[in-house]
Amino acid sequence: MHQNLAVLLIKCPDRPGIVAAISSFLFAHGANITDLDQHSSEEAPGTYFMRLELQTGGLDLALQELRGAFDAAVARPFAMEWTLTRAADRKRVAILVSRHDHALLELLWEWRRGDLPCEVTQVISNHPDLAGAAEGMGVPFHHVENGRGTREAAEARMLELLGASTDLVVLARYMQIVSPGFVARFPHRIINVHHSFLPAFAGADPYRQAWARGVKIVGATAHYVTAELDAGPIIEQDVGRVSHRHAVEDLRRIGRDLERRVIARAVRWHCEDRVIVHGNKTVVFA
Amino acid sequence: MHQNLAVLLIKCPDRPGIVAAISSFLFAHGANITDLDQHSSEEAPGTYFMRLELQTGGLDLALQELRGAFDAAVARPFAMEWTLTRAADRKRVAILVSRHDHALLELLWEWRRGDLPCEVTQVISNHPDLAGAAEGMGVPFHHVENGRGTREAAEARMLELLGASTDLVVLARYMQIVSPGFVARFPHRIINVHHSFLPAFAGADPYRQAWARGVKIVGATAHYVTAELDAGPIIEQDVGRVSHRHAVEDLRRIGRDLERRVIARAVRWHCEDRVIVHGNKTVVFA
Amino acid sequence: MHQNLAVLLIKCPDRPGIVAAISSFLFAHGANITDLDQHSSEEAPGTYFMRLELQTGGLDLALQELRGAFDAAVARPFAMEWTLTRAADRKRVAILVSRHDHALLELLWEWRRGDLPCEVTQVISNHPDLAGAAEGMGVPFHHVENGRGTREAAEARMLELLGASTDLVVLARYMQIVSPGFVARFPHRIINVHHSFLPAFAGADPYRQAWARGVKIVGATAHYVTAELDAGPIIEQDVGRVSHRHAVEDLRRIGRDLERRVIARAVRWHCEDRVIVHGNKTVVFA
Amino acid sequence: MHQNLAVLLIKCPDRPGIVAAISSFLFAHGANITDLDQHSSEEAPGTYFMRLELQTGGLDLALQELRGAFDAAVARPFAMEWTLTRAADRKRVAILVSRHDHALLELLWEWRRGDLPCEVTQVISNHPDLAGAAEGMGVPFHHVENGRGTREAAEARMLELLGASTDLVVLARYMQIVSPGFVARFPHRIINVHHSFLPAFAGADPYRQAWARGVKIVGATAHYVTAELDAGPIIEQDVGRVSHRHAVEDLRRIGRDLERRVIARAVRWHCEDRVIVHGNKTVVFA
Repeated sequence: MHQNLAVLLIKCPDRPGIVAAISSFLFAHGANITDLDQHSSEEAPGTYFMRLELQTGGLDLALQELRGAFDAAVARPFAMEWTLTRAADRKRVAILVSRHDHALLELLWEWRRGDLPCEVTQVISNHPDLAGAAEGMGVPFHHVENGRGTREAAEARMLELLGASTDLVVLARYMQIVSPGFVARFPHRIINVHHSFLPAFAGADPYRQAWARGVKIVGATAHYVTAELDAGPIIEQDVGRVSHRHAVEDLRRIGRDLERRVIARAVRWHCEDRVIVHGNKTVVFA
Repeated sequence: MHQNLAVLLIKCPDRPGIVAAISSFLFAHGANITDLDQHSSEEAPGTYFMRLELQTGGLDLALQELRGAFDAAVARPFAMEWTLTRAADRKRVAILVSRHDHALLELLWEWRRGDLPCEVTQVISNHPDLAGAAEGMGVPFHHVENGRGTREAAEARMLELLGASTDLVVLARYMQIVSPGFVARFPHRIINVHHSFLPAFAGADPYRQAWARGVKIVGATAHYVTAELDAGPIIEQDVGRVSHRHAVEDLRRIGRDLERRVIARAVRWHCEDRVIVHGNKTVVFA
Repeated sequence: MHQNLAVLLIKCPDRPGIVAAISSFLFAHGANITDLDQHSSEEAPGTYFMRLELQTGGLDLALQELRGAFDAAVARPFAMEWTLTRAADRKRVAILVSRHDHALLELLWEWRRGDLPCEVTQVISNHPDLAGAAEGMGVPFHHVENGRGTREAAEARMLELLGASTDLVVLARYMQIVSPGFVARFPHRIINVHHSFLPAFAGADPYRQAWARGVKIVGATAHYVTAELDAGPIIEQDVGRVSHRHAVEDLRRIGRDLERRVIARAVRWHCEDRVIVHGNKTVVFA
Repeated sequence: MHQNLAVLLIKCPDRPGIVAAISSFLFAHGANITDLDQHSSEEAPGTYFMRLELQTGGLDLALQELRGAFDAAVARPFAMEWTLTRAADRKRVAILVSRHDHALLELLWEWRRGDLPCEVTQVISNHPDLAGAAEGMGVPFHHVENGRGTREAAEARMLELLGASTDLVVLARYMQIVSPGFVARFPHRIINVHHSFLPAFAGADPYRQAWARGVKIVGATAHYVTAELDAGPIIEQDVGRVSHRHAVEDLRRIGRDLERRVIARAVRWHCEDRVIVHGNKTVVFA
């Protein structure tokens, strides 16, 4: 069944008749809807969001032709932004990392056991340390030095490595700032894990900030990267309880587990076409 | 908007075309779909479940006529079990309780502040202790003694009090067994809170059982009552962490909070037509 | 046993021999230690914190004499800040509230059933609305208008009502700012519940802030009030998961449950002498 | 500081004077107590449990001599069961595994990064599949076939491999029953991860059992292995929320994360001498 699975993601102005138009079109063309989730934002005028899984085995058209027909008959009349993606066309994911290996290893490990539906095409790092970890899993590793004076050259080199075929860039504890120009090349296609419960403790060394404030709960956040640091649309967050007994290093250890969980979930949801960005927020059909 | 809200709940054999048939019918009659959630069970042949919220303001038929038209045009061809309920027709809820007041007070308190969309019509207890708690909130209280020798008479009296208009019976720590005959009068319309993480620690004094086993997490369970004790379809569960420092009495205190939460959520979801029973399990569109 | 329970709370510069000095002193005077928890802060020079429960039934001195002996023999040599409190001398608690009743009701309800070891002596509000809720539980209610122009008079009246015998002031959603002068009268003896996961969303209308930021988890915080708004030592926090489906009003509903839990825990821990303030943080021996 | 850290674990009949005796003895010999946690069971006669961290840098005796002196002066008079362990003497841990790699990889990964204070000495499996995973981390791997007809020979071979120097055996999803004779060789020194929230769903295929029962929360349990299957003292449990949307395979995926967390915590706590077994329960000074 998974071989014939396709996912339709839609965002459009809310108005009556959307579900009827979509489902009637699909039914008429032999698509079987196996899952459907929707949401209407509460502000006025509202925005409508839908995620729909369908089986393509009984289609009367090739998928590309169906796209054309859908565009003409449904998407344009309703002014939809939309994608229709075959699940078998797995997204191509590149992972950027510095020295901390936990987020990288979690992704590679889940990917290898088939829990992460994507192709991990390469790992890029500003340090050589994790070459073995990547290559041991059969993933090409590229060392691209990066820093205050070399950012421009580094990003140029990385863009060359990423090329035109990379669908998603994951910053798995990549400790360098990425420039607005770099971000603009992958709009809502760069996911970062921030090691705090954003918007608390944005910026540097969040576990130390959290320890200094004496919070009783720490967190981690996976979000899309935008031009403004630590301020992009949040995809997932998770938290863990701490107490006065926990030193900064304990917070880091507890945080590593949280970071692993949120980045793995965020990447899975993105790769399964479950996330729609709306302004600075996300709709996640998880 | 809430004034014109109606909820359609559906369960039927899974097959292509269900969404198209329902949404096209509703659109044709002027109903605006504002929320839609669905699920297909994975066994073969599958079962289809749907919850749909619609606005009735633009309907071209009265709701009762729409029901008839829907039955003929959609429900019968697809062999659906279904209900279409106006949210403004709030369910009539009776609460049975013994001496522990926490579940009762939580329900009454949430109801009074408008968080529980129902009418609490009466409180029945086998002890007189909580008369003040109920009547203080303006809810009639009935003391009906119950026990080993008086069960038959007690249940007859309670059935008389409940009458034909009670939609839901909530056992908010009602410490008497209800007979299969009583249960049969309210199929999937009696909700009980069990003070453990079922199926662990079914039966009497679950907090003592949990303490004796040395578990590190305790729980509470809200479920529909069936003829078999503590084995009905689970609606909601929640858990809390405990350690060797917690005595049985501490487990009871922690458990009271869990019981309050799960019973309040389960009653709210039932009253908002979010729960469909399927075999011994529930589909909860929460 | 509870009748003879006393709690010793200690904070002093860390150095070898503290436990031996305390436990030998207590053993020599017939006190039986039934619980002991301690913590040493990691910074250098370190600070030592201890909470110790003891049974006074076998004491060879009256408690007041024991205090004097302890001061001379142990506390002064180790430069301790300390209290030794009989559990039976329950703290006298006043609750300040505006219109939201959930935090107040939770405290009153837990207090009435014996889960909150204190005396609730009065409820003060800047609105008359909750007089019935307080008086229905047998607690005196005082309406003291407060606002931009009347703060000085209001606080003078409240200080008069609180008098010299109030041990703890709880701001259970009291929506007025309290002046530094008022705070100074109750150092580390005013507990506030803030409706966010501090330090995120300090200030006004935090649930709307959280909704606008698109967080996936909301929280509530109980903290001691200091001169700086929303910045005092955190005692307890709790969180709940939200999604794009939750409107601001839903966040408020979920948040009410979190607020109830954190304020109840914080007040209980304070009343059981489990909290020691250290700088802007707390040590909580929970 | 860690180089000079030692941990004292004590269990004895409860009575006055224990803390004073221990702390005075240690102070007199130059040991600096840096952490102390204790617990008294509530049954009568009670049992006393203590975990104490001390710095050995200022000791006036070698550690082995201190043990002898402590035994004579304190342990025997109070009838203590006790251990005094140098943290630098890391426990030797062998991991038994079948085909599922997640628990094994989590342990190896945490161990390699220094989060698991032990020596992983070998991995033994009844399948050859995970040889690369172990040896890639530099850990010897032994394939010992095991099954209904070969249990006796398999266990003999494993006991030979484990030898006399193995401190802890971890069953990281080892899908073979271990005999009472094998268990008796490592009393309270075999930790198993069970893939359910015990005591619910003991026995085979717990995720399928959980799915069939329609629970809303699934769990995992780490416990010491005793002669009775799935009934030994529980060290740690954790849970995750599920719904009707989750198929058995989803429960397994969610469960893998829970299993990883509970086994890693249980092994860390055991290796840090934080766990004392009492009857069929544990005291965990975490």
